[in-house]
Amino acid sequence: MTHVTMETSEGSAGAMGNYYSEEIHGRHEYLDLGDFELAGGITLPNARLAYKTRGTLNDAKDNAVLFPHMWSGTSASMEIFVGEGRPLDPSKYFIIFPGQFANGFSSSPSNTPPPFNGGAFPNVTISDDVRAQHRLVTEVFGIERLELVLGWSMGAEQTYEWAVRYPDMVKRALPFAGTARTTAHDYIFVRSHEDALKSDPAWDGGFYKDQSDVHVGLRRHAQTWSVMGLCPEFYNSEAYRAYGFSSLEDFLHRFWENYFAPMDPNNLIWMGWKWRHGDVSLHTNGDLAAALGRITAKTYVVPFSRDMFFPPEDCEAEQRLIPNSEFRVVDSLWAHFAMFCLADRDREQIDACIGDLLKEHVD
Amino acid sequence: MTHVTMETSEGSAGAMGNYYSEEIHGRHEYLDLGDFELAGGITLPNARLAYKTRGTLNDAKDNAVLFPHMWSGTSASMEIFVGEGRPLDPSKYFIIFPGQFANGFSSSPSNTPPPFNGGAFPNVTISDDVRAQHRLVTEVFGIERLELVLGWSMGAEQTYEWAVRYPDMVKRALPFAGTARTTAHDYIFVRSHEDALKSDPAWDGGFYKDQSDVHVGLRRHAQTWSVMGLCPEFYNSEAYRAYGFSSLEDFLHRFWENYFAPMDPNNLIWMGWKWRHGDVSLHTNGDLAAALGRITAKTYVVPFSRDMFFPPEDCEAEQRLIPNSEFRVVDSLWAHFAMFCLADRDREQIDACIGDLLKEHVD
Repeated sequence: MTHVTMETSEGSAGAMGNYYSEEIHGRHEYLDLGDFELAGGITLPNARLAYKTRGTLNDAKDNAVLFPHMWSGTSASMEIFVGEGRPLDPSKYFIIFPGQFANGFSSSPSNTPPPFNGGAFPNVTISDDVRAQHRLVTEVFGIERLELVLGWSMGAEQTYEWAVRYPDMVKRALPFAGTARTTAHDYIFVRSHEDALKSDPAWDGGFYKDQSDVHVGLRRHAQTWSVMGLCPEFYNSEAYRAYGFSSLEDFLHRFWENYFAPMDPNNLIWMGWKWRHGDVSLHTNGDLAAALGRITAKTYVVPFSRDMFFPPEDCEAEQRLIPNSEFRVVDSLWAHFAMFCLADRDREQIDACIGDLLKEHVD
Repeated sequence: MTHVTMETSEGSAGAMGNYYSEEIHGRHEYLDLGDFELAGGITLPNARLAYKTRGTLNDAKDNAVLFPHMWSGTSASMEIFVGEGRPLDPSKYFIIFPGQFANGFSSSPSNTPPPFNGGAFPNVTISDDVRAQHRLVTEVFGIERLELVLGWSMGAEQTYEWAVRYPDMVKRALPFAGTARTTAHDYIFVRSHEDALKSDPAWDGGFYKDQSDVHVGLRRHAQTWSVMGLCPEFYNSEAYRAYGFSSLEDFLHRFWENYFAPMDPNNLIWMGWKWRHGDVSLHTNGDLAAALGRITAKTYVVPFSRDMFFPPEDCEAEQRLIPNSEFRVVDSLWAHFAMFCLADRDREQIDACIGDLLKEHVD
């Protein structure tokens, strides 16, 4: 309930000012990446990676947790897992919340000068994010091994990429509600979301003046997203009523449209492209088993029941290919959105996954 | 495989001529409904209901089967269940394939003169269809009781409406992959499909000149529809390859875009509106249990496994409210599209449902 309020107050930022501001998302630090060569072959000049940290890196540098964030928002929403008595206690762990390309703080369509501004921003990939994050972890902090890498949704894609690309650096991996290789079904629904934004003539190939010029596309995208963003049971049981929404239409406007309204359409589209092209098997010529077989981290693969984006069976198929892994399902009416912990029961289950994995002994 | 070919040859009708032609959908007969007062309060002048029949009505008029069709196409696709050795043998049964409003043959946005042409066509409901079909059954054929009413998807909605509105006339009811009252989740996804068509500026409030003017909207709609029209397993296992499609993109273009390309956007939108407003509980002040409790027909409720439009649990919740009913699930990788019987196993299961129900003794 508290968190819904936060989301809707974020939602009003569009009218009030810039959504991608520290007032809304908290203070960020920035790693200057210089001229960063992307996997797609384009070199992005003066690239930067935003990040936040909580807690203190100890002298042994063996208390670091890396928590990449999901599509659309920033790590602000993931900080609910940090705090005294929370699974990520900053008095014990040094928690790094790295940004990612196209999130509005790191190099993005919304903040990059010509020739790569707006619709001309190059395609970015999960591997680009993880290579940039690797520089943050090693060059800025001098960390050789991470106690835990965890993330939700697109953050799970980055978690997998970390565990496959840098297996010796990832002691424990915890991908929530995401996949190591985007499925064909995910690919088409994410593209349909991008197309909903692009369908607004005001999008203009990505060269609109202000994000709010594309408000029709943002609304259309929100309505399309709402369909699989939650699940039939959520809507059919009118679960939104318990969170202060008075009808289905009220929920669609005040939750979904409000959530996306202040965001930058291009940022969403470029992050969507990145999402649907996520694929750790690019490391192994398309052999997913070989790629996942590289993982040495103790891994919990944790899908959310009723998740229409990442059905548990898709996640389980990948878990079977990961040597030292376990499969756990978080049961939630909030489907893919269980990670927002709007229900106490969701928070308890997710907390337990993080807490239990951190307790696992790993050599 | 044969049927895919038929669908794709239908698909090319857009370029060749009028999709809503007897060359493509077979010969229809028409019932002149005169000035037909719709549930929404508008009187539609010179309304008409298209229909087809197979077999011969016997003297006792007790061998009639009514088979309303689904959204988008016509009953042409359902005739695969009729024939010698098929579950609906025309040497034994008199099979009526009634049309429905907005299907392009019956009164529709595409064929109605001003003031109700195109975007000005009035909203039509499942109850309007069933009242028109009732006139066909009683006034044209003098039938007092139907041996079986069956239908798929929106045809299932009409089957439920028949069984609730005219319980004494329906001896057996067989709704495949559909619901008696549209769920909230169905409501939002069907509306998102309508909105994909409307998003094309060429749609122009429904007042385009030729359906092909809206080809961008039709393509966008096809791509959106493809996401839930089948299921993750279908796409992820590349099941389309067994049907002659060489890749995901090939399937999306040659199956989905081709399927919708020749259709009239308004007809799809008006049938969509009808679909998402289907609700037998309008008979009982919103009390679904009371409405379904009226059904006296022996009823099989038959969802399709993996159906993302009508999940089996949604259908089962309704089945529990129907006195003399059974619940059967057809297991198919084709999800909602099992009814096209593209897999032999789908046809066998569906045939068995029809055959078994017809064998049930009903007083």
